Amino acid sequence: MKILVAEDPWRDLPPTARLVVESALLSFADRGFHATTLKHIAAGSGLSTAALYVHFSSKDDLLYDISRRGHESALSIVEKAAALEPADHAFRTLVYVFGRWHAERHTVARVVQYQLNALTGVQAEKIGGIRKRTEQAVRRAVAAVSAAGDDDIDLRGLSAAVISLGIDVARWYEPGGRYTPDEVGRLQCRLAARLVQLGSHPR
Amino acid sequence: MKILVAEDPWRDLPPTARLVVESALLSFADRGFHATTLKHIAAGSGLSTAALYVHFSSKDDLLYDISRRGHESALSIVEKAAALEPADHAFRTLVYVFGRWHAERHTVARVVQYQLNALTGVQAEKIGGIRKRTEQAVRRAVAAVSAAGDDDIDLRGLSAAVISLGIDVARWYEPGGRYTPDEVGRLQCRLAARLVQLGSHPR
Repeated sequence: MKILVAEDPWRDLPPTARLVVESALLSFADRGFHATTLKHIAAGSGLSTAALYVHFSSKDDLLYDISRRGHESALSIVEKAAALEPADHAFRTLVYVFGRWHAERHTVARVVQYQLNALTGVQAEKIGGIRKRTEQAVRRAVAAVSAAGDDDIDLRGLSAAVISLGIDVARWYEPGGRYTPDEVGRLQCRLAARLVQLGSHPR
Repeated sequence: MKILVAEDPWRDLPPTARLVVESALLSFADRGFHATTLKHIAAGSGLSTAALYVHFSSKDDLLYDISRRGHESALSIVEKAAALEPADHAFRTLVYVFGRWHAERHTVARVVQYQLNALTGVQAEKIGGIRKRTEQAVRRAVAAVSAAGDDDIDLRGLSAAVISLGIDVARWYEPGGRYTPDEVGRLQCRLAARLVQLGSHPR
């Protein structure tokens, strides 16, 4: 199976800006967006608070930028996987990369999933749009493998469950713990195959 | 099916203390534990900050008390369900009540699941102990319905997935949205039955 690797969401940033992002990510994940001050971010990145403004105009913009890049990174691998053929290969690959992404990038994922309500206005709308596209890609992949007439669980409920399994990885995953990111991806694959009953009926 | 209803975790508290808990819950869920000040909690409950100390000695103790009662509430219904007979009835009931609990008490659940790392020392250990008991009850219920020799997913991975489905309800559930808490419970039941392949092989 060809493994789709998510590109580094911050590959275009200069090294100093990356330090700012990393410091902000750790603080948002640890103490939360609202309790993070520019001083925390400056201290974590080794810059002065004034120097932060070279890269980001506000704490809100920093969260938005992290959320946008994080969501786009997940969307990109999900859409690439969903475009594969045949449908069961697309589904399994999608679940694998989504699960592995949430393990490898668990700090990013925690911030983008659990600090989401700190975004407002146009920024919240834009992130909502990316999330919607991710959900739609998952729903298409699930629909393509679900058995016709298999209506004891509706497509929306089934897709939401596949997404839940992936997202919850960010909550429980620990680096150096029981599973590697690759093992998480493979576990998710087997679990999701059961959810959509892939392989348990002829197609 | 007899429906197991979780008791109100704060039933023994006097009305004023309940106001404090409700205010703290909303603030912890909305802006996070670290960004919540005693002033926020006081304002939300209509009390003075001095009056808060009649009920709780610190913000940490308030989070601990909320976490303890929240986790004990979930553990209680899970253990009651797990004790039912026969095993498939126990499993289905457990999944139903766990899912419904995370919908009905989504604010409590968000705080106890996502603000967990704000707890330290003995308090963190005690909450860890309750979580472990909940996991063990789920694992017993899953083990009792899983097919012998059904080893392409280990018991721990399967139980973790059942728990993930339930916990993630707290993240996506919206009151007045697509599903009622009862419908969430029933959806979870069907999804988890697929995960453990309940009903798809003779036993």
